[in-house]
Amino acid sequence: MPAPASSRPMKAVAVVGATGAVGKEIIGCLEQSRIQVGQIRLYASDRSAGKKMTYRGGEVELETLSDDAFRGVDVALFASEADISGRYAPIAVKAGAFVVDNSSAFRMDPGTPLVVPEINGALVTPDTRLVANPNCVAAILTMALFPLHLEARVNRVWAATYQAASGAGAAAVEELELSTRAFLDGKAYPPKVLPHPYAFNLFSHNASIDPATGYNGEELKVIAETRRIMDLPGLPISITAVRVPVQRTHAIAASVAFDRPITEARAREVLSQFPGLRLVDDRAANHFPMPVEASGKSDVLVGRIRTDLGDPSGRTLAIFIAGDQLLKGAALNAVQIAELAA
Amino acid sequence: MPAPASSRPMKAVAVVGATGAVGKEIIGCLEQSRIQVGQIRLYASDRSAGKKMTYRGGEVELETLSDDAFRGVDVALFASEADISGRYAPIAVKAGAFVVDNSSAFRMDPGTPLVVPEINGALVTPDTRLVANPNCVAAILTMALFPLHLEARVNRVWAATYQAASGAGAAAVEELELSTRAFLDGKAYPPKVLPHPYAFNLFSHNASIDPATGYNGEELKVIAETRRIMDLPGLPISITAVRVPVQRTHAIAASVAFDRPITEARAREVLSQFPGLRLVDDRAANHFPMPVEASGKSDVLVGRIRTDLGDPSGRTLAIFIAGDQLLKGAALNAVQIAELAA
Repeated sequence: MPAPASSRPMKAVAVVGATGAVGKEIIGCLEQSRIQVGQIRLYASDRSAGKKMTYRGGEVELETLSDDAFRGVDVALFASEADISGRYAPIAVKAGAFVVDNSSAFRMDPGTPLVVPEINGALVTPDTRLVANPNCVAAILTMALFPLHLEARVNRVWAATYQAASGAGAAAVEELELSTRAFLDGKAYPPKVLPHPYAFNLFSHNASIDPATGYNGEELKVIAETRRIMDLPGLPISITAVRVPVQRTHAIAASVAFDRPITEARAREVLSQFPGLRLVDDRAANHFPMPVEASGKSDVLVGRIRTDLGDPSGRTLAIFIAGDQLLKGAALNAVQIAELAA
Repeated sequence: MPAPASSRPMKAVAVVGATGAVGKEIIGCLEQSRIQVGQIRLYASDRSAGKKMTYRGGEVELETLSDDAFRGVDVALFASEADISGRYAPIAVKAGAFVVDNSSAFRMDPGTPLVVPEINGALVTPDTRLVANPNCVAAILTMALFPLHLEARVNRVWAATYQAASGAGAAAVEELELSTRAFLDGKAYPPKVLPHPYAFNLFSHNASIDPATGYNGEELKVIAETRRIMDLPGLPISITAVRVPVQRTHAIAASVAFDRPITEARAREVLSQFPGLRLVDDRAANHFPMPVEASGKSDVLVGRIRTDLGDPSGRTLAIFIAGDQLLKGAALNAVQIAELAA
């Protein structure tokens, strides 16, 4: 590890929901971060109390949340469900912590910035105490949209997602693997975690459907949050969210219309220069973004850049995106937000 | 089996490419068909010559193609690659057979009808000798588009596909299963049939990329054939074709814009009444079309019908489709075409 920069004060950092899929990744991202963590405090539910996790080779005992859990905490990273975040994030703020919340509790709160650092990190000022971390698809999608938007204003988006099991938690990943092995062994495996069989199957995202619109909760989040992150309140977005039998990394097929044409060459240029993106766009080798190459990586992969044949005006680009939704779609983005404050 | 209708003459039927994924399904569809098959002749490559397959419980010896293979054949169903079809389909026509070709050889030939019976079966007349069977995605997509188009003219389509291994043949299905088991066992499995790792991964469709447009061959087929089947030569279609780790059944997320609004209720009505479609659209149960329920079934499943939030004019519907690409996307549609002629 690089030596701590002497100018940075040591921080007491809390991770809430430390044992979950995102919490574990936050701990890993903190180990790689330039935040100088003096003390780490890991919070989990009652059933994990007393158990231990590892941070930088040392053992850390898991604690249970309480109203005075955040005394002396400089940075609190919440990887909890919205109800826990809704209750404890304000307590952490009141105790003086800079809080990043990964749940949906504050994402649409007008007083709470919703931040992807590369896009709107400037919203985090010295006065900011609470920042919302976006939905995983919204974070990954906006990473690819924003550099193009800087070039020629985005006016329409169509997206279909290919979402991995880990977006539904570690138990869903286990169900994918166990049910797949059962299928290959010719055995039955009734689904327990997800509503449908997952082995070699795909299905509409399991978030519940809003009866008024027919959209599921995931799709509605992506629409609202993409607009908010891009600061384009009325941006028309078509989206279908689908779970595919992949453990990790969400992919997105998107068509994006602009106010004026962007050439494929210029699109490749701006995407390849944007921090946190990696262009994977080799037509001859048929090599484009895919989960196996995005998983465990900080960069969001973008490629298959082509002028969309469905728009004869030439103002629409088709793209394909793959990003590790536990990293840039969750933990990494949260730690990057904390770095802005530190 | 129902007794043969006495008015129908017995037919000599040939299947070319009988041992392939589609050829096997054609044999199964013929067993269920109302075509009165008097004699079946099964053709395969040299390496299968002399082997036997089963038809209605009887053994049939595989033959090798030759220039006089189609003497006495009434109906010839080609499930071969385009080069074989291009050479032998005209020979079969000349020998007097009614020919249905599943390859891309004749699909864009202006003199050869490209047919989905429920949509444009009327193109098959007593004089028709050769009919092209569409690309699997084009067949499944148009099945869902056409009933809506009858209601309010389609003017724009966006589609992203979730395509199964079996579209790339039986060897690709085997590679998916073997590589998945290897992954679960912690073993390496270098891809042999497909260009990328397939276990719990997805990738842009493996058809080669057209350097001029950046579109792959699969996408270009779907665009051209959808226009031709729908008789909408200039229909703007955006499409991204993706392989997902599913053995069988292609799924499609689509947004479809119309000249005038169609209500969700009316869309459900026309889709549920169209032959060959089955509506699966239960919002409360989060139950929509998925491969595990479409595989092995004749009907194409359609659901997730909703007014697309991305089009404030209300003239766009979002839908999700799942169809067995070996059945309606290939073998079943071919046999249905043969039934039109018989």
